[in-house]
Amino acid sequence: MQKILNVALDNRSYPITIGENLLSQFEHFKLHSGQRVLVVTNDTIAPIYLQDLLDMLEAHGVKTDSVIVPDGEQYKTMETWNQILTALLANNHTRSSILVALGGGVIGDVAGFAASAYQRGIKFIQVPTTLLSQVDSSVGGKTAINHPLGKNMIGAFYQPQSVVIDINCLKTLPQRELSAGLAEVIKYGIIMDSAFFNWLETHIDDLLNLDVDALSYCIYRCCELKAQVVAADETEQDMRAILNLGHTYGHAIEAELGYGNWLHGEAVSVGMLMAAQTAKLLGLLADKDIERIENLLIKAKLPVKRPEQMAIESYIPHMLRDKKVISGKLRLVIPTKIGQVEVMDGIEKSVVLESINNS
Amino acid sequence: MQKILNVALDNRSYPITIGENLLSQFEHFKLHSGQRVLVVTNDTIAPIYLQDLLDMLEAHGVKTDSVIVPDGEQYKTMETWNQILTALLANNHTRSSILVALGGGVIGDVAGFAASAYQRGIKFIQVPTTLLSQVDSSVGGKTAINHPLGKNMIGAFYQPQSVVIDINCLKTLPQRELSAGLAEVIKYGIIMDSAFFNWLETHIDDLLNLDVDALSYCIYRCCELKAQVVAADETEQDMRAILNLGHTYGHAIEAELGYGNWLHGEAVSVGMLMAAQTAKLLGLLADKDIERIENLLIKAKLPVKRPEQMAIESYIPHMLRDKKVISGKLRLVIPTKIGQVEVMDGIEKSVVLESINNS
Repeated sequence: MQKILNVALDNRSYPITIGENLLSQFEHFKLHSGQRVLVVTNDTIAPIYLQDLLDMLEAHGVKTDSVIVPDGEQYKTMETWNQILTALLANNHTRSSILVALGGGVIGDVAGFAASAYQRGIKFIQVPTTLLSQVDSSVGGKTAINHPLGKNMIGAFYQPQSVVIDINCLKTLPQRELSAGLAEVIKYGIIMDSAFFNWLETHIDDLLNLDVDALSYCIYRCCELKAQVVAADETEQDMRAILNLGHTYGHAIEAELGYGNWLHGEAVSVGMLMAAQTAKLLGLLADKDIERIENLLIKAKLPVKRPEQMAIESYIPHMLRDKKVISGKLRLVIPTKIGQVEVMDGIEKSVVLESINNS
Repeated sequence: MQKILNVALDNRSYPITIGENLLSQFEHFKLHSGQRVLVVTNDTIAPIYLQDLLDMLEAHGVKTDSVIVPDGEQYKTMETWNQILTALLANNHTRSSILVALGGGVIGDVAGFAASAYQRGIKFIQVPTTLLSQVDSSVGGKTAINHPLGKNMIGAFYQPQSVVIDINCLKTLPQRELSAGLAEVIKYGIIMDSAFFNWLETHIDDLLNLDVDALSYCIYRCCELKAQVVAADETEQDMRAILNLGHTYGHAIEAELGYGNWLHGEAVSVGMLMAAQTAKLLGLLADKDIERIENLLIKAKLPVKRPEQMAIESYIPHMLRDKKVISGKLRLVIPTKIGQVEVMDGIEKSVVLESINNS
C-alpha cells in the first residue's frame, strides 16, 4: 500500500509516492516507453539498487544510461556536477531526456542542479534513498552544490516531476545516517507541530527499528509539513526560513570541520540545541522544552554537545557567510515552544557566543 | 535622448534603455544608494569603461566590487563562471547583492548564469557593450556557458532587472565585431520583418559608420522584434526557434574550428546562407531572395563562403548534438521569403550536405 502526497507549487503539481518496494514498480515514475533516462547515483547505492532499477525501466521500454559519482558531502562539488553534465552530453541526451536522481541528499541536490542547467532545464525524478533526503529534499525544489567558500552557495530552485520514496531503501542505510535523518524529522515537530513532536516521543524506537507503518506516517507528515511551509512562502517571505532551525549554527560546524566529518543531521541536532540556548538567553523558551528536545535527540542517537575541537569564535565567520544573513546582521530561527518558532534579526554576537558556549 | 523599451515576460517587466552616454547616468541602472554590486567585465572592456562606471555608482552610494575575466568565446567556460561565483563569495556578497554584466554576449551569458545560480539567484543588470549582445542578449533571458562537448549546453532562463545600452560603447568596438553584430540584425529582417530588411538595405552604411539615429532605431527594433518572439513562445512552442536561423549550421562551424576563431556572427552569416540553400533545394526560396540576403551580408562586411578548411561531413555530428535536435532528427529554420521562415523537422542529411556544399 502506498501513500501519495500531491505537492502543488508554481502552477505545477507533482506526486510524492511513499511505500515499500516502489523501485520495482514502474507506474510511480511517471515515465513512458520510448523516453530516455540518465540515472545518477553514487558508488554506495549503485551496487545495491542500480542494476535492478535500470532493468525495470528497460523492461518498460525506457532507454537508460547511468553515471556513478563518489559518495559523500565532500563530493557535492562543481566537479561532480560537471561529471553528470558530461555524461548527459557524451550520451547525446536531448532536452526531452529525463534525469533520475537515485541516492541521498547530495545526489538529489547535485543531480537536480544538473537537470536545471542541462540545456537550460530537463525534467527530473527524485528517488531519495536516505531518511534525510526523503523528508527534506522531496519538497521545496532547492538544488545546489557546495563551493570551497560556502555550502549550498550555487544552485537553483527546480521542481521534480515526481518523487518516489521506497522505504525498503532504509534497510541498507547505516544507523548513523538514519539518526541524522531523524534530526530533520524532529525539526518539523519543533518548528510547527507539537502533536507530531509528541508522536515522535512515543514512536522514536519504532522509527529506529524501521517499522514500516511508523516510517510511512513519519515521512508523509514531514513532506506534508514542508509543503505547507513552501506553499505559504509564495506570499510570505519569512515563512520558509523556519525550516532553517539549527542550520545556521550547524552549517558553521560542517564548514569548519569539513563537510562529511559531521553529518548534516548531526550538525543540525547540535545547532537546534544552540538555537534553543539562544531562545533561553532571550527569555523565550522554557527549560522543560529544551530538556524535551535534548531527550528526544538523545533517544534518536544524535549528538547533543558541540564538537570539542572547534573554538567558539570560529563559528561567527561561517555564520556571517550564511545565505540567511542580510546586510551583515545575524538572522536566526528561534524556538519559542515545542511547535513554534520565530525568525529573529539582529541578534547580538555576544548572545550567539554564549549560546554556543552553553551547548 | 533615450529610447526605452519595456519588456514584459513571466509576470515581470524590465526596461531596456538605449541611448548615448548612458554609462554615466545612474537613473538607468534602477539601483539605490546602499545596495551592493559586483561588476563583471573582461580584460578588453575593463581598461576603457570599468573605473568610470565604478566611480559613478560609488558617487551615488552604491558599494561596488568588480571581477575581470579573460575576453573571448573560448573563456565562456565553467572556470570563468566559477571565477565570478568565487568573487561573489570572497567579497561576502549576499542574496540582496546585484550583479552588473559589463561586456559582450559572453560576459552577459556567463555573468547572467552566475547571477541565476549564486545563492539560487540574485538580481542582475545587463550592460551590453557590443552590437551583437545589444540586439541579441538583451531580450529572452537565455544565459549559458559552453562545455567542451557543446556550445551553450549549460545554463538557465533568467531575466535581468534592467538593460542599459550605451551606443557610445560601439565606438571602441572593432569593425569585425560590429559586422558580426550586423549578422544578427539582418537575421531579424529575414525571419520576420521585410520592411526592416528593406531599411537595412538602405541604411547598412549608416550603421557601419556608427550613425547614432540609425543605431538607436536598429537596436530598438531588434529588441522589439525579439521581445515579440519570446512573448509569443509562452503559448507557441515553436515560435522562439525561428531566432535560430543559421545557428545550427553556424554552431557546427564554431565548434569544429574552435570557438572564437570564427566570430559567432560570422558563423551565423554563412549559416543563414546555408539555410537559404536548404530552402532553395526544397523549392521554398527564390534565387533573388538569396541574392538579396547575400548582398546585404557582403555590404555588412560579413563572410558569405563556408570555411575552406572544414570538411562537409564534419558538420553533421555537431548539428546532431544541437539543442534543436529532437529524437535524432534534424530540425532547421528555413527562410521561405524575406521576412518569413518555417521551422522544419526531419530534413534529409543529403539535403543538408548539399546545402553546405553549395555555400
